[in-house]
Amino acid sequence: MDLKSLIRTVPNYPKPGILFRDISTLLYNGNALKYITEIYYNRYKDKKINGIASIEARGFIFGAILSEKLGIAFIPIRKKGKLPCKVYREKYELEYGTDELEVDITAIKKNDNILIMDDLIATGGTAIAAGNLVNRFDANIYEYTFLIDLPDLGGSKKLINKNYSVYSLMKFSGE
Amino acid sequence: MDLKSLIRTVPNYPKPGILFRDISTLLYNGNALKYITEIYYNRYKDKKINGIASIEARGFIFGAILSEKLGIAFIPIRKKGKLPCKVYREKYELEYGTDELEVDITAIKKNDNILIMDDLIATGGTAIAAGNLVNRFDANIYEYTFLIDLPDLGGSKKLINKNYSVYSLMKFSGE
Repeated sequence: MDLKSLIRTVPNYPKPGILFRDISTLLYNGNALKYITEIYYNRYKDKKINGIASIEARGFIFGAILSEKLGIAFIPIRKKGKLPCKVYREKYELEYGTDELEVDITAIKKNDNILIMDDLIATGGTAIAAGNLVNRFDANIYEYTFLIDLPDLGGSKKLINKNYSVYSLMKFSGE
Repeated sequence: MDLKSLIRTVPNYPKPGILFRDISTLLYNGNALKYITEIYYNRYKDKKINGIASIEARGFIFGAILSEKLGIAFIPIRKKGKLPCKVYREKYELEYGTDELEVDITAIKKNDNILIMDDLIATGGTAIAAGNLVNRFDANIYEYTFLIDLPDLGGSKKLINKNYSVYSLMKFSGE
């Protein structure tokens, strides 16, 4: 299945000059959901992963599907102020200013083996913040996984430079 | 499986006197993810449903799992300003003021048979707005489905009074 053909590219969003890669059109395709899930399942089924830390909101989609398929914990990493419990909190940079991600302090156990999932990696700010959150538990980050990598924006390289494993289903570079 | 025992109740959140029903602790349990998915799958597998309209963000979790399992469209219903495309938009009431939900105008086809999914129904404001969005496509709402119904807050009754079918896995009432 040609997954890249299912991605909708929106020019000049959210601002002029940016090509926004939108997974919505892929999500409307039930066969594509099954195809992607099969790839992820085969990659991770024997890896003794305890949970999938999934970044709000689009990261929840395949994070949830794969957690259920593997029968392991779904761990929501949420935007600031959404969780009703004690949280760990990490700042990350936006173009102007900063924002924060949070995770329940009871969500992960020490030495758990955690997969971090999001739909897309660009500059890597949220991915690094999510990793910092997982590290607060003294857990292991098995790998970062994304549907889409925009390698020109350098995020996946930053993760690799921190000795993390990174896996993406699609790359969009200079197109 | 006693699902209600897996829900964390947080007193006085988000304000004094409210008992917040938090599904996080259920999500950390991979067996519970599988158990709930089996219930939903058996309920909907033969119903010729074309897509699951899933309300951001917690509604994405089982909406995505079940869309993949059934091999049908996952349709994100998002908070205002998150979608990079032309949208239909519906207001709903908050305690103070209003907010808006949006859906891609290409997400659903006329006469599609749509399941609407969220984690919890309380007063029903977002559920009704989500239904109004689905109706903009001249699609059919097969059913509303929730993990948790808080019947004392009247939302599920409002939906039933509009002749919608409503299904919930758990009810919390006066406890």
